[in-house]
Amino acid sequence: MSETKILLEESAIPTHWYNVVADMPNPPAAVLGPDGNPVTPEALGAIFPPALIEQEVSTERWIPIPEPIREIYRAWRPSPLYRARRLEAALATPAHIYYKYEGVSPAGSHKPNTAVAQAWYNREAGITRLSTETGAGQWGSALALAGQLLGLRVRVYMVKVSYEQKPYRRSMIRTWGGEVLASPTDRTESGRKVLAADPDSPGSLGIAISEAVEEAASRADTNYSLGSVLNHVLLHQTVIGLEAREQMALAGDYPDMVFAPCGGGSNFGGIAFPFFADKAAGRDVRLVAVEPTSCPTLTRGVYTYDFGDTAGLTPLMCMYTLGHDFVPPGIHAGGLRYHGASPLVCQLHHEGLIDAVAVPQVATFEAGVLFARTEGIIAAPEASHAIRAVIDEALRCKESGEPKTLLFNLSGHGHFDMAAYDKYFNGELEDYEYPEEAIHAALAHLPKVGTA
Amino acid sequence: MSETKILLEESAIPTHWYNVVADMPNPPAAVLGPDGNPVTPEALGAIFPPALIEQEVSTERWIPIPEPIREIYRAWRPSPLYRARRLEAALATPAHIYYKYEGVSPAGSHKPNTAVAQAWYNREAGITRLSTETGAGQWGSALALAGQLLGLRVRVYMVKVSYEQKPYRRSMIRTWGGEVLASPTDRTESGRKVLAADPDSPGSLGIAISEAVEEAASRADTNYSLGSVLNHVLLHQTVIGLEAREQMALAGDYPDMVFAPCGGGSNFGGIAFPFFADKAAGRDVRLVAVEPTSCPTLTRGVYTYDFGDTAGLTPLMCMYTLGHDFVPPGIHAGGLRYHGASPLVCQLHHEGLIDAVAVPQVATFEAGVLFARTEGIIAAPEASHAIRAVIDEALRCKESGEPKTLLFNLSGHGHFDMAAYDKYFNGELEDYEYPEEAIHAALAHLPKVGTA
Repeated sequence: MSETKILLEESAIPTHWYNVVADMPNPPAAVLGPDGNPVTPEALGAIFPPALIEQEVSTERWIPIPEPIREIYRAWRPSPLYRARRLEAALATPAHIYYKYEGVSPAGSHKPNTAVAQAWYNREAGITRLSTETGAGQWGSALALAGQLLGLRVRVYMVKVSYEQKPYRRSMIRTWGGEVLASPTDRTESGRKVLAADPDSPGSLGIAISEAVEEAASRADTNYSLGSVLNHVLLHQTVIGLEAREQMALAGDYPDMVFAPCGGGSNFGGIAFPFFADKAAGRDVRLVAVEPTSCPTLTRGVYTYDFGDTAGLTPLMCMYTLGHDFVPPGIHAGGLRYHGASPLVCQLHHEGLIDAVAVPQVATFEAGVLFARTEGIIAAPEASHAIRAVIDEALRCKESGEPKTLLFNLSGHGHFDMAAYDKYFNGELEDYEYPEEAIHAALAHLPKVGTA
Repeated sequence: MSETKILLEESAIPTHWYNVVADMPNPPAAVLGPDGNPVTPEALGAIFPPALIEQEVSTERWIPIPEPIREIYRAWRPSPLYRARRLEAALATPAHIYYKYEGVSPAGSHKPNTAVAQAWYNREAGITRLSTETGAGQWGSALALAGQLLGLRVRVYMVKVSYEQKPYRRSMIRTWGGEVLASPTDRTESGRKVLAADPDSPGSLGIAISEAVEEAASRADTNYSLGSVLNHVLLHQTVIGLEAREQMALAGDYPDMVFAPCGGGSNFGGIAFPFFADKAAGRDVRLVAVEPTSCPTLTRGVYTYDFGDTAGLTPLMCMYTLGHDFVPPGIHAGGLRYHGASPLVCQLHHEGLIDAVAVPQVATFEAGVLFARTEGIIAAPEASHAIRAVIDEALRCKESGEPKTLLFNLSGHGHFDMAAYDKYFNGELEDYEYPEEAIHAALAHLPKVGTA
């Protein structure tokens, strides 16, 4: 009987991150300032350390991972790769299904892979505090963990409505010594403005970003840290795909298709980019980003320049967007509720080099429950998007008789999402198809600078 | 740099469970019926399958683990053994600290090790349904998982106050296809009696046991399943210690002391018994059961015959007890709130072969937080009891300069216990020292049959 889990020794933790830019047919589109001119690396120095800015614009294929970061990765890396034999049997599919499980990190998701790296580079640059924002709390808890392990103080601006409704990731942040504030706060200009207009504001990710960036920009000891979207964040996550490639080789298999959920893009880039290197070298592999039908950035958005945040404070990035003031419905995969996506992922999609599909909420939970009942692990709703797409493909394989090899990133567990599972069982979840006219309306507010 | 995690291949999952009875200097005390005569194996046949009854009374040293059970164990076993280097550094202790991490199972604790075995033996015996009780839900969720993986229906009687206050382990039970009822219910004679007297009864573990046992005894297709205390349950958990012994050898180390939390005893027996085999063969190793000062069964109870449940429906077991109608304070380590403990563990303690210590609640959470901030993992409050005792020993080593090797069982994660961590941070937790007169009062109600 072959192994259920394919494990690697700690010595197999990658020594380098893989930079997909080196294998892209065209250079990444420039990031623009409000004046329409490219943003210089220097301009980012107010909130990011030099090493991360270098990574953000690097064209080198391999970036060495500093030993102290690999040392911390050892607490949970290499993460296991599983062969999903029980799921295959339940589907009666000839497909081989594998999943890389990132829920083994202490924070329960892939987020610490970049949180630890960002905290380390900031500490090396003499920074002693990090500010960030968080919605449901997955990123905020990962950064609090990283800050604690590296001796940096972390302040997390958590969207007030989540702060009140989802107390347990807030508790994790406290347990790891982080400070968590319900945003909007009265500690920043941005927060005070919002509170002046609406003292009962429930907050939003856009407001929380503004508060965290303002704090970092105004304090010399503090930098800002982001959990997805940016090039250096996706770079750090490539340890997932690099390990998975080794593990697939140990299993004597190679994926025909690689799936991952796609919100900001770090989950997808993390597992898919190292396989893109193979694709660029001529190997036949399809890379599929899976998003919710309620927030169909890659499948229904337009490819153009837009702000990364709601308030329009960030530089302009060339990406698929639903419009920066698009407000996605309140689905239970908070990590996928983003109007845009990583410019690298978007450019690859625009150039026809990766695929994207959208799946509806109820079918996604149905897939998550089937997964829990066969493989045991209760997945985060974000991760269940990839499960849904993989099950759909495996069922097509059953029809066609093709024994395809399918790999996906099981990016986190669902231990803090049980209320959403309850709603599914109680029949209280809805599907959302965002109407065409609403997308048109949001796109009417696109910034006037920049052309794609 | 040596490994942080010591991993084993799946082929190293033990092929046999270790039965401590074979190495005990005296045979286990008999289990007695209400008439004071030993209970026969046949009498247990109404609620347990033959194979488990055989294991309950076996004196064989090694019991083979059926391949289909090892096959399911592969989903999370062998579990990792960690060297706690960051904790050691924070304590500045010369001690070597290791922990076996059972939180990697899908249910997040060691409980599935026996749940899977019990479900399998019941299925082999033609049983299609299992009934059980659960307090906070850790055992109920583990049995629901096992039932799902093996095709048995599972009904869980969950103490009503927990059902209402701790909804998320209830959600896990549903996710794995289990049925969960708030006990007392109107489906059993026992439940109806309680409801007739008090329609608003919050329930208790004793009532829930009565309901689950009554259902199993009255239906031919249904057996009862218990998560701790009984010999066969501790037997199944010895995979923990057997693996840990291999892993310690790989690390080139051997424990001077082995610690585990002790409620019913399966956590402690699971890791400690295989080391007891070494001790019986002359090796110098101390085995320490750690309990809360609020429920000090081994450290302050008396060794005598008592009922296993509150209502007095079970056979009489010879054990340390605080009295079967002892109601422990509402501490946050629900798994340790039990008036008695495993007769095997109690007999070894009575004969001076193992040690027991009690630790107070606030210091236990303090230890859990230090552990989270150094090792990353957020521990279940039950597991934090072992962490507290290990830290105390490591600090003694710092005083004395002794480089002792300490091993403990990190039996589960605390993802469903964050509300308790919050109370700790808010200064809302209390220490409880159970007063001597209250223990005397409870002991006055000991059953009149049986002598120890």
